[in-house]
Amino acid sequence: MRFITEQRLDDDILEREFLLGDIPGILWTPVSVSEPMPLILAGPPPLGLHRAYPRLLDRVRPCVTEGYAVATIELPGSGERPRSAGADQALADLRRALAAGGPVADEIVDKLILPLVDQAVPEWRAALDDLLALPEIGGPVGYSGGVISIGTRLAAVDPRITAAVLFAGSFVPRAIIEEARHVTIPVHVLLQWDDEGNDRQMALDLFDAFGSEEKTLHANMGGHTGVPPYAGAEAGRFFTRHLK
Amino acid sequence: MRFITEQRLDDDILEREFLLGDIPGILWTPVSVSEPMPLILAGPPPLGLHRAYPRLLDRVRPCVTEGYAVATIELPGSGERPRSAGADQALADLRRALAAGGPVADEIVDKLILPLVDQAVPEWRAALDDLLALPEIGGPVGYSGGVISIGTRLAAVDPRITAAVLFAGSFVPRAIIEEARHVTIPVHVLLQWDDEGNDRQMALDLFDAFGSEEKTLHANMGGHTGVPPYAGAEAGRFFTRHLK
Repeated sequence: MRFITEQRLDDDILEREFLLGDIPGILWTPVSVSEPMPLILAGPPPLGLHRAYPRLLDRVRPCVTEGYAVATIELPGSGERPRSAGADQALADLRRALAAGGPVADEIVDKLILPLVDQAVPEWRAALDDLLALPEIGGPVGYSGGVISIGTRLAAVDPRITAAVLFAGSFVPRAIIEEARHVTIPVHVLLQWDDEGNDRQMALDLFDAFGSEEKTLHANMGGHTGVPPYAGAEAGRFFTRHLK
Repeated sequence: MRFITEQRLDDDILEREFLLGDIPGILWTPVSVSEPMPLILAGPPPLGLHRAYPRLLDRVRPCVTEGYAVATIELPGSGERPRSAGADQALADLRRALAAGGPVADEIVDKLILPLVDQAVPEWRAALDDLLALPEIGGPVGYSGGVISIGTRLAAVDPRITAAVLFAGSFVPRAIIEEARHVTIPVHVLLQWDDEGNDRQMALDLFDAFGSEEKTLHANMGGHTGVPPYAGAEAGRFFTRHLK
């Protein structure tokens, strides 16, 4: 991990861009740090960090103000990272199926999501190795985001993740629903009930599958991007309960 | 409405038992009141107020401390109120169906719940008439409870109810799910995901049916009686947003 830029945002947040190999990432920390902080990995939406930045920063600011370090990395195939022909094809198939109002075949979801999860999860774990080696970061570690299948596998396989806020806003392969049974950490799932580009039943099946003794589903209205501010505050309090 | 007892609880809460006709009820208010307060109608579980009292008081205390008046009345067929042979038969049929692990026929749910709703809703409206006539109570009015079908119809038919916290912990007749489409106030629904004596799909169908622009579902683990403390606090913040 190599820091390449550093700027101070107006509310005493230090924003540092870094490269993890050739994967771009951003680390946000309070300007003044007195002791090693807990860390939140903020999974981005698959828009590219540049396009996702404004909404991502809205999620990040209150966390840093609360005393967390927050980090994100670019997803495979997003931003400037090389696209995958298979994923592009699957995305086109998904959009066609949604436009036709029909069900989305499992094969399309698998082709779109599983290679992304296979590639992204090791990258997030490598980022975590390097982030936890920084003197200002101590842990524990939460995951918040993003593509829910990535967060689900990460929570299932990496024991350093202590608690996860998961956004049920994307299609989920059946195989990931099976992996969710191995997740035992506290999970807090956000679902936009009227998300027009999502499969609500799949999200409920995934929530049902989590093996966690403590799991919470918060469903709200407002469409895919309309998570209400109070839902963000509730997710923040979930992290306070588990990371502080 | 006729007050019959009055006692001061240890944390500056005034508890007054009353009779509304022959229906027992309880009103809790802060000991000192400087201006007319908002009111929360606290729907009890169908256990009888005496048996429900300890858990009810756990729900009531933080509300009164926050500056609400809270009132409840005995449900038809609960406590000392005359039981209905039809409801007893339907409850026996429900328990038999649950013990057999089979689905519960709509007819059983209808027979158990619809007469209860038909009788209870006018009683709660009458209680509301009298409560709002008290000088210490000004409104707005929230409903929190209880048997979810009662709260649903009350929210659908009484325009004085401004916001409702509903506990999705009992079976719901199809007819009530239809009535939920006429509910337009903000609703905050609590669902115990692993509630052994409930029909989860029915609860989700009901949530889906609410016509409200703002509706939130909070699902948690812990069984029927295991609503986590933080879920109670979240419901409290919902009322703060809508009743203050």
